[in-house]
Amino acid sequence: MDSHRWVYLFRDGNAQMRGLLGGKGANLAEMTNAGLPVPPGFTISTEACNAFLTNHEQFPEGMWEQVEASLKDVEASMGRKFGDAKNPLLFSVRSGARFSMPGMMDTILNLGLNDQTVQGLAAQADPRFAYDCYRRLLQMFAKVVLDVDSDLFEDVLDAHKRKLRVQQDFEIPAEALKEMVGEFKAIIKRESGQAFPDDPWEQLRFAIRAVFSSWNNRRAIAYRNANNIPHDLGTAVNVQTMVYGNMGPDCATGVAFTRNPSTGEKKLYGEFLTNAQGEDVVAGVRTPQQIMTMGDDPQLKSAYDQLVQIAETLEQHYRDMQDLEFTVQNGKLYMLQCRSGKRTGQAAVTVAVDMAGEGLITQEEAVQRVEPDHLDQLLHPTIDEKQERQVLAKGLPASPGAASGKVVFDADEAKARGDDGEAVILVRIETSPEDFHGMLVARAVLTARGGMTSHAAVVARGMGKPAVVGCSALNINYANGEIQVNGSVVKKGDFITIDGSTGDVMLGEIPTIPPQVGGNVSTLLGWADSFRRLGVRANADTPGDAAKARELGSEGIGLCRTEHMFFQGDRILAMREMIIASTDEERQAALAKLEPMQREDFVGIFKAMDGFPVTIRTLDPPLHEFLPHTDEEIEDLAREIDVDPNVIKAKVAALHEANPMLGHRGCRLGITAPEITRMQVRAILGAALECSAEGVDVFPEIMIPLVGDVNELRLQREVVVSTANDLFAEAGREIPYSVGTMIELPRACLTADEIAQEAEFFSFGTNDLTQTAFGMSRDDSGRFLPFYVEKGILPSDPFQSIDRKGVGALIEIATMRGRQTKPGLKLGICGEHGGDPSSVEFCHTAGLNYVSCSPYRVPIARLAAAHAALGEQEHDR
Amino acid sequence: MDSHRWVYLFRDGNAQMRGLLGGKGANLAEMTNAGLPVPPGFTISTEACNAFLTNHEQFPEGMWEQVEASLKDVEASMGRKFGDAKNPLLFSVRSGARFSMPGMMDTILNLGLNDQTVQGLAAQADPRFAYDCYRRLLQMFAKVVLDVDSDLFEDVLDAHKRKLRVQQDFEIPAEALKEMVGEFKAIIKRESGQAFPDDPWEQLRFAIRAVFSSWNNRRAIAYRNANNIPHDLGTAVNVQTMVYGNMGPDCATGVAFTRNPSTGEKKLYGEFLTNAQGEDVVAGVRTPQQIMTMGDDPQLKSAYDQLVQIAETLEQHYRDMQDLEFTVQNGKLYMLQCRSGKRTGQAAVTVAVDMAGEGLITQEEAVQRVEPDHLDQLLHPTIDEKQERQVLAKGLPASPGAASGKVVFDADEAKARGDDGEAVILVRIETSPEDFHGMLVARAVLTARGGMTSHAAVVARGMGKPAVVGCSALNINYANGEIQVNGSVVKKGDFITIDGSTGDVMLGEIPTIPPQVGGNVSTLLGWADSFRRLGVRANADTPGDAAKARELGSEGIGLCRTEHMFFQGDRILAMREMIIASTDEERQAALAKLEPMQREDFVGIFKAMDGFPVTIRTLDPPLHEFLPHTDEEIEDLAREIDVDPNVIKAKVAALHEANPMLGHRGCRLGITAPEITRMQVRAILGAALECSAEGVDVFPEIMIPLVGDVNELRLQREVVVSTANDLFAEAGREIPYSVGTMIELPRACLTADEIAQEAEFFSFGTNDLTQTAFGMSRDDSGRFLPFYVEKGILPSDPFQSIDRKGVGALIEIATMRGRQTKPGLKLGICGEHGGDPSSVEFCHTAGLNYVSCSPYRVPIARLAAAHAALGEQEHDR
Repeated sequence: MDSHRWVYLFRDGNAQMRGLLGGKGANLAEMTNAGLPVPPGFTISTEACNAFLTNHEQFPEGMWEQVEASLKDVEASMGRKFGDAKNPLLFSVRSGARFSMPGMMDTILNLGLNDQTVQGLAAQADPRFAYDCYRRLLQMFAKVVLDVDSDLFEDVLDAHKRKLRVQQDFEIPAEALKEMVGEFKAIIKRESGQAFPDDPWEQLRFAIRAVFSSWNNRRAIAYRNANNIPHDLGTAVNVQTMVYGNMGPDCATGVAFTRNPSTGEKKLYGEFLTNAQGEDVVAGVRTPQQIMTMGDDPQLKSAYDQLVQIAETLEQHYRDMQDLEFTVQNGKLYMLQCRSGKRTGQAAVTVAVDMAGEGLITQEEAVQRVEPDHLDQLLHPTIDEKQERQVLAKGLPASPGAASGKVVFDADEAKARGDDGEAVILVRIETSPEDFHGMLVARAVLTARGGMTSHAAVVARGMGKPAVVGCSALNINYANGEIQVNGSVVKKGDFITIDGSTGDVMLGEIPTIPPQVGGNVSTLLGWADSFRRLGVRANADTPGDAAKARELGSEGIGLCRTEHMFFQGDRILAMREMIIASTDEERQAALAKLEPMQREDFVGIFKAMDGFPVTIRTLDPPLHEFLPHTDEEIEDLAREIDVDPNVIKAKVAALHEANPMLGHRGCRLGITAPEITRMQVRAILGAALECSAEGVDVFPEIMIPLVGDVNELRLQREVVVSTANDLFAEAGREIPYSVGTMIELPRACLTADEIAQEAEFFSFGTNDLTQTAFGMSRDDSGRFLPFYVEKGILPSDPFQSIDRKGVGALIEIATMRGRQTKPGLKLGICGEHGGDPSSVEFCHTAGLNYVSCSPYRVPIARLAAAHAALGEQEHDR
Repeated sequence: MDSHRWVYLFRDGNAQMRGLLGGKGANLAEMTNAGLPVPPGFTISTEACNAFLTNHEQFPEGMWEQVEASLKDVEASMGRKFGDAKNPLLFSVRSGARFSMPGMMDTILNLGLNDQTVQGLAAQADPRFAYDCYRRLLQMFAKVVLDVDSDLFEDVLDAHKRKLRVQQDFEIPAEALKEMVGEFKAIIKRESGQAFPDDPWEQLRFAIRAVFSSWNNRRAIAYRNANNIPHDLGTAVNVQTMVYGNMGPDCATGVAFTRNPSTGEKKLYGEFLTNAQGEDVVAGVRTPQQIMTMGDDPQLKSAYDQLVQIAETLEQHYRDMQDLEFTVQNGKLYMLQCRSGKRTGQAAVTVAVDMAGEGLITQEEAVQRVEPDHLDQLLHPTIDEKQERQVLAKGLPASPGAASGKVVFDADEAKARGDDGEAVILVRIETSPEDFHGMLVARAVLTARGGMTSHAAVVARGMGKPAVVGCSALNINYANGEIQVNGSVVKKGDFITIDGSTGDVMLGEIPTIPPQVGGNVSTLLGWADSFRRLGVRANADTPGDAAKARELGSEGIGLCRTEHMFFQGDRILAMREMIIASTDEERQAALAKLEPMQREDFVGIFKAMDGFPVTIRTLDPPLHEFLPHTDEEIEDLAREIDVDPNVIKAKVAALHEANPMLGHRGCRLGITAPEITRMQVRAILGAALECSAEGVDVFPEIMIPLVGDVNELRLQREVVVSTANDLFAEAGREIPYSVGTMIELPRACLTADEIAQEAEFFSFGTNDLTQTAFGMSRDDSGRFLPFYVEKGILPSDPFQSIDRKGVGALIEIATMRGRQTKPGLKLGICGEHGGDPSSVEFCHTAGLNYVSCSPYRVPIARLAAAHAALGEQEHDR
């Protein structure tokens, strides 16, 4: 009969057939064809699964006949028969989808046993072994196929152990196991309403059905939803001859990596147990031995030597570090599984660089083998996984890395204690620019409110400092100096540890592992740099950040926020004087105080970025952010600057805004108060002239924020140019500089053709663009955005990864229209997305010139940009 | 010589040549060619002006020769000569641009007089008359051409009058005038450094230059900037033979309208003065007589009869009400000016309807003749222009109409006093939904803060109630119960009057004129309805509003905001209980209280809109808007609903948002708390079932607000549909209804193709769309938006008129993408823009199905929609 092919013997498949055979089946086939000792078997394809599921759970026509034929082939090769009472052939049945997927039916072992065949197995091995296999089959079959509660069987097992006064399963004698088989069968009958099928073929039919159906169980569907795995892939079923590592001292079972998955060291790594089966390794009853010692056992030496050779062969074959499962039965090695091995960041980099050195893979492949997450692990201290910990609560993992310190609630206190060398963690309900100095000295930041792009998160990332934000379980009481959290109380001065990579908040001081930025990382990033087309800059506001950014490979500064500078030391006073000024003279006097301070910062930044461009944004936040708010703070300020407190209160009230995000900020400030822009331009270009005189190569790019209409940019540009001309005339020298704008409003994207007339560059401010495109405040979205992501309403947090459909579409419109007007327009992105790999890929595809991100994300952006370029090449091939 | 033509005799032009000859010149030519008695003359073209201005103020080649030739032609027709000592021909020189434009040089009269020709004039008329003409020429020439301060001449005039002991100019005898001529010449020489040119040709050259140059004077440029008039149009110069209305009792001068410009009555209307010149009418020295009485004067009767006939002829000719200027010289009528007459709203409607009735114009033309502003005047009470007033301050004209009342600062007090029949005006720093009940009873609303779309403005317009908002000069002190404003103090209970059409805030009770919605308005709007394609609906939240809307011609409700309903009476308590509920049961209980209340409102609205669709928006504002905020209010609420005040305080704190506009609101509420949506749907469709049972035709359209992603709409739609199905099953009947969404976020526009999959209609919420596209809060934009509009950074307030470049582009994208998915998708707009004529035109062009606006704007939208459709037809021709 010329039926569709549903079933493939292992020898008929290969590694490329993952879609049809699933990952496990494809690899078993590949190993079989590579001549490795794989217990024979066959795979029922994912197509069969899909046909089954769409056809009222009927096996597709011809499938069962193919299963029978394949099984006969295995019988022939093994010289044993399925269901044979003397010399029974037993099988394992396992699911295996294209992507590794928890939640589906896993494994049934020893399929083929019944009251007759168990005798044959007992005769070949020993009765205890045979009945133990039998009761395990019953237990697994009952649970997986018939949905009977496992605990019922465990209760029986426990009862027998109590009666026998033994502790461990393996101490139960054969007779008792035989009794248990009867009891297990009775439970199955009672609970499922049907008898355990004696017929091995019936067992197999049931098992295959169960695997197919498990594709659509609740857990599996939820997992696929959460991981964006399509629901129509289906799972394959692998039916494989059983082998046993527990038939005697010449038997063993184990797991091995072809290289060390923690360090990447090129040396077989793994564990094994003599006379045991896989479960025993997992159960932790006996302590496994290091794989190297296996060669020392004369009964296993030959198998070990073969394993070492096979490991080498498989690595060469797959050109990647492999994770192997094996069993030794009576001295003979069998390979049960082989897949690409999971690895730490350090191992990923080391393996990639080493393999490229060995000529096993190309440099392009080496770069592609390392995931951005791998690199992220290396760039921050991590919690030592071996340490005990008590997780108090979980917040958003806002800025990676782990740190311990004493709880402090106040920025001033954090500063004082931090300056004294104490390790402190600043804990706030939420942070504001006034907490900046406290954040600077704290080891980490923890907040109860705010999202991934809240003030705390953005500033902490900029500082490369761990932060957990939006940890809503924290009930912070500033007055009492304590935090109530899930029933515990943490007091000021208590030690806590936070993990900004996971969001965990833990009690006490938990040791961390320092970042590992070795030579291999540099080598790999060097290769990445040679493949990427996208430039990578950093967002940096201080000379220190700028130096750090350059050290991490930044090719300039894409965003220097001038407002943070105003919060340091006495500057905030001058800034407040400027805001409160009631006459032009007072305002000019305050601005005159600020100018040299700003200039000094720019000098430091230009020097740190010698030879690279520096994009400086003019003042952006609404002025009320610089003013104090409590009566006490206002009184203090009034004394300090000698002004009636009521004047300050009136100013605070007058500047209050219902929606500050949409208020009097950005270029709107510079337009209504051009003297501020003028002061900033004098500071920027004054610093540039000074640096240039000292031989520093400076390329200032002056960026006007929050432009929504070309006229806004035109007016601000006029202020910049006229100020620059005056300054250059005074100095008798000129400095090349450019003027551009941040594109962070939908209207700016839609009118980018007009705006480009006045801009030498655009820098997409994707934080604000996301806020305005979605009409969603990043600070306030905490009450619904996590729910949205959890329910799949949005695929991911748009403040973390660029929303391509909406925000991305706006960027594409702006790119197209901007370059229509000015083909050479320089385009970059300076939102928090600049360090997110998926967003970097988008920026590459959209044709931007560069991304700019926190200094500590620069290496990740370099790698992601290389991935984007290499991915595109593959796509083109 | 074959030179370009720069100069046109009146007989060589016509009314179509406005661009070349200016408005005045074109009309003089048209009248001349219609055979009317126009004093002969010629027009120097706007092209000549432009050539002059671009060529270093040189007359273009050939122009002067053409002026000379044209003047000779006039001399021939008049039988007099320019500069002739015996029989001098005198001219007026006037500017005349395409658009009437204050700020430019106006008029020089009597050009051609000098020491010789004045004798000829004296001989023909009388010496006093001749020297008076001469000194006027000197004075005007000095001021207009030579920029000499007019006061210098007035001082001389006054000195003579004092010396002569006379009060009025006309009492000065000829000798004194002759003396003054000498003194005026001396002043000219001294002040300008040059002598008054005796040569009439030289006078003419100077005058023409002066008119040309005045096109670019500061005032003229500012006026063009403010009115969007291009700067390259140029002005024409009209040179016309002088005629005199002050040469004796058979002379007169006057102004007439072919119909009454106040009422539209078809009857010559105007004023004249015997033996006078134009200036005298303006100066108000003598009281002019009604034009009808002119026929009673035997010396003027013939001229009057001719004027009546000419008026008729001109109206027939121009097919519009005309504004005429005339002079009678020695019994002979001369027409000096003729233009379309300015008129009040009432006159505009009456004239248009009458003229269509007379067959003079078509109904289409009648509709096009009435401006939306005309209609607006008719729909609201206006200040009686004849009354004295003291304007205290000016705010934004947020909701038209005028009203007087006693100042009240508190909504509760307004309610109490209003219910007692007192006329009160609610004066607040700004309003919030908690002031709603106070606004309902107040005659008008006045706020110190907020823009054209602030809460106060939007709600007042919705109520058709006058409002002035953002009147920042008001210094409101609630505690003292007074307003400090520009040096005055207004106390609680004092009477004020506000004019919401102008923004004026006035002291005292100033009488107003009630709205005039006569039969002509209905007739005209009926015609408009037959021409428009765009539907017109109203935004209405109560049965009363709905009835009003229908009365004003609304074809359904485009936006019914359910949240306003929650502020009435006890409802706010139930709403607050729902928000504060700590268990699901409590929440459900509170919702169960709200459902019948909502249902009752919907029953009223459906009945009022019998036969028309009603679009109801589910809950939109963030929940914290419903909670009290001061400690006192919280204590009150705690007592009322028997909850610990700290629980309420904690809830208020927990719901606080940094940017409520971008927070947890719109469909985000319904998604995180679907029980709210469910309650509302039960109320809506329950009401629909009830009404339908009573024979009312109901078409409920359920609108989900603030959708940014199709998944949001999908989830809310599922809630709607399942609730509806349950309800219909309970009732055993079904009602047709539709589900759609408000498109008010940029991302919704960009993903409209996806969203359309789940929507039967889109309604553009252009208020929020403007806020998000611009990143500009309407409440906070008051500090920079007025400045932007004033400086021309934005052409107009985008919250008043749709910003076509940005917001309009988003609407076009959404329209295109939405209809790509669903060609029959119904599209409307329900922002405040729905009642703005320019925005209505945009909606027509963008292909929307309807606009929805405040009930009181419905007639205006109907007219504007007709204008858009008719304008398009013209365009197509």
